[in-house]
Amino acid sequence: MTENNPALMTSTIEALIDGKKYLTLRDIFVTMQPMDIAIVLGQLGENRLPLMFRLLPKELAAETFIEMDPDEQELLIRGFSDSELKDVVDELYVDDAVDLIEEMPANVVKRILKSADPEMRRTINELLNYPEDSAGSIMTTEYVSLRPDMTAEDAIKRIRRGAVDKETIYTCYVTDLSRKLIGYVTLKALLLAEDDTVITDIMGTDTISVTTTDDQEEVANAFSKYDLSALPVVDKENRLVGIVTVDDAIDVMEEEATEDIEKMAAITPTDKPYLRLTPFEIWKSRIPWLMLLMVSATFTGIIISSFESALAKWVALTAFIPMLMDTGGNTGSQASVSVIRALSIGDLDFSDFFRVVWKELRVAVLCAVSLAVVNFLKIQLVDVMIMGNSSITVMVNLVICITLAFTIICAKLVGCTLPLIAKRIGFDPAVMASPFITTIVDALSLLIYFQVASLLLGL
Amino acid sequence: MTENNPALMTSTIEALIDGKKYLTLRDIFVTMQPMDIAIVLGQLGENRLPLMFRLLPKELAAETFIEMDPDEQELLIRGFSDSELKDVVDELYVDDAVDLIEEMPANVVKRILKSADPEMRRTINELLNYPEDSAGSIMTTEYVSLRPDMTAEDAIKRIRRGAVDKETIYTCYVTDLSRKLIGYVTLKALLLAEDDTVITDIMGTDTISVTTTDDQEEVANAFSKYDLSALPVVDKENRLVGIVTVDDAIDVMEEEATEDIEKMAAITPTDKPYLRLTPFEIWKSRIPWLMLLMVSATFTGIIISSFESALAKWVALTAFIPMLMDTGGNTGSQASVSVIRALSIGDLDFSDFFRVVWKELRVAVLCAVSLAVVNFLKIQLVDVMIMGNSSITVMVNLVICITLAFTIICAKLVGCTLPLIAKRIGFDPAVMASPFITTIVDALSLLIYFQVASLLLGL
Repeated sequence: MTENNPALMTSTIEALIDGKKYLTLRDIFVTMQPMDIAIVLGQLGENRLPLMFRLLPKELAAETFIEMDPDEQELLIRGFSDSELKDVVDELYVDDAVDLIEEMPANVVKRILKSADPEMRRTINELLNYPEDSAGSIMTTEYVSLRPDMTAEDAIKRIRRGAVDKETIYTCYVTDLSRKLIGYVTLKALLLAEDDTVITDIMGTDTISVTTTDDQEEVANAFSKYDLSALPVVDKENRLVGIVTVDDAIDVMEEEATEDIEKMAAITPTDKPYLRLTPFEIWKSRIPWLMLLMVSATFTGIIISSFESALAKWVALTAFIPMLMDTGGNTGSQASVSVIRALSIGDLDFSDFFRVVWKELRVAVLCAVSLAVVNFLKIQLVDVMIMGNSSITVMVNLVICITLAFTIICAKLVGCTLPLIAKRIGFDPAVMASPFITTIVDALSLLIYFQVASLLLGL
Repeated sequence: MTENNPALMTSTIEALIDGKKYLTLRDIFVTMQPMDIAIVLGQLGENRLPLMFRLLPKELAAETFIEMDPDEQELLIRGFSDSELKDVVDELYVDDAVDLIEEMPANVVKRILKSADPEMRRTINELLNYPEDSAGSIMTTEYVSLRPDMTAEDAIKRIRRGAVDKETIYTCYVTDLSRKLIGYVTLKALLLAEDDTVITDIMGTDTISVTTTDDQEEVANAFSKYDLSALPVVDKENRLVGIVTVDDAIDVMEEEATEDIEKMAAITPTDKPYLRLTPFEIWKSRIPWLMLLMVSATFTGIIISSFESALAKWVALTAFIPMLMDTGGNTGSQASVSVIRALSIGDLDFSDFFRVVWKELRVAVLCAVSLAVVNFLKIQLVDVMIMGNSSITVMVNLVICITLAFTIICAKLVGCTLPLIAKRIGFDPAVMASPFITTIVDALSLLIYFQVASLLLGL
């Protein structure tokens, strides 16, 4: 990829700062992407950051500001004069301003709100009232709305006039006099139309929209399903109140995928990037699940204890407990993770319950047979012949392999059904992943083990 | 979300087909999103699908076609006359045509290529030559390129003339006479400029681009990092050869996240959605890892076997093996999954190795202490007092809890370092997730267990 390497840039920039070559620095910055400038500035340290930031032209400064880490943003704001703060805040889109405010301490928030113009302050306060992770909380109010009876020429004029302050001008929304959303029109359609064409004749009416209280995950799914570049957000009366643009939807997608992955690994999701979490915050997000799963393992302990005398007689059986439990856990996790992912990208629904079970049952039988056969041969060859473990009779080997086969089938069925059931009863399916499945399958595999052993070995 | 419910639509549409209300059906279809029409048609079955598809107006038909499953696409193509096929192919964007061709059997591919016009056929063949999952394989060649000396007015005229066939007109690329990429200009900038402004004066030169052979993951990361709506793709001589649009980047992001999740659950990723995989295909994607992990469990078996006599003497120890192994596996997975995700969204790099280890070490100590204390109390209260298991002496309990603490610390360190090392030596870090970590931690926890037991109980 052709981009500047921020790590490499930093040393050049530090040398230029030391040489006080400020004009050269400014020339370099204006050729760079705001994101890359933010990375470079972030590596400069508290003393030089404000100085360098002031070198940036006004608009670039605001664009860079929004890409910085909250700590650096706070540092900058505390150093800003009121007029400098106003310059930055004026250039921010409303949704970026809201994101910023959500990260800042109260006294900084007060200064930001004071420096926003009254109209923007009102909008910010409105957006702050939407529930976290709702469509309302991620939308912007800076969209283009058109009337159905406008001509294409008028519409383009209107767009040109207002373009500077809008987050996107490429999809415009058509509303009636009571602000109800009635359609959309792309700038492409407007440019291709004759000047006197009326909007009604070229607008699309198959509008996809969300309401302010819809979850942001639905917003992200709409973008990926319908290939949108912006999505209108309406209130309960179908009045247009904002739009979500595709760049924000991409952030939501990344966030939601991260959350799913964290939940699958028994971690309570946090919003912060890994390196910015303190050890205590990481501990807090991980310990509840570890505690719960550790205490649930009491059951496996009880099962083993109750077969203590049998295990003392058939000592070889103990050695294969970890293998049986792990293989069960792995096969179960495969099924649950496949189902969880398919559910969250909308490839699957609870109505597919029996299709999924029937599919996993056949996969389970294939896995059970192949693993059991390989394991039987491996034990005869490695454990009995090579390592000379005479306590493993063919009967003991059979007990192990039959248990393995049944455990795999149970594990796959538990793994594929639990996420579907969770979804059905309104729980998050992602929680039903490896750690949870493993705990259940551990107990199941031990019960099967001792049952099979009782039958074949007469414990 | 306000959208049509495809499941609900199907029954209405079936009733209308039975009543031969074809005009009504057409009226309904033109109000719907192509994606939703594709879902509804997909549920109609082989006989009625071609009939319904022919009701769609030409452009909508092509848009719907591209959203359908490959099986349905093949069915339709086999039923098309040559001119019907040409109508659909003419409406396709080049990158969609390439996607289609990659899914079809050879004889269908031949017909598709025959019905494409020579220019498109040449482009398709070129795109098919790029390696799978490269930027070249997902780009489209239908972009707007402008010359640096054009005026804004000329540029807008050129855009209007060519707009119909371009995938996006909102970001245009500026190239010199040898097609080298020298900058970009947005339609917004063009609309805001005076008519006689020269492109050079308004174009951006901080262009982010990828080369044709770059991996699609880099493409997706560029979109999310720089909030792009399109990304230019250049050849080795920096000549512009195509663009990737944001809708395709979103598909790549979803695909890459799914792949990561599958690898973390020891599944070999496939391109197909879950419900379209046969049980045999699912088995093939899961069995190699299960086999490998099952055979690796031989080590845990050997460790247990070599302490057989000790376990026979201290029978209570066996009952806690599953709890120790699971808790170790869970804590290790948490660390590995956090690191893997941070690596894949670019929040982390190998250079952060020591920061990560130091952070996880502190988290590990917090987790170890809290879990060990809770476990000690739980065993005294539940296992000893309530369940009356007299074989668990305070010393045995100490052995269990000290083992737990050390296992947790080892597990976190193994979990956070392995993905970083994998990344460093060019392996996929996602493979170093739960199943792999679990297998390693199992053996470690047993070794610690018997070591601690030897010291405190004198095995």
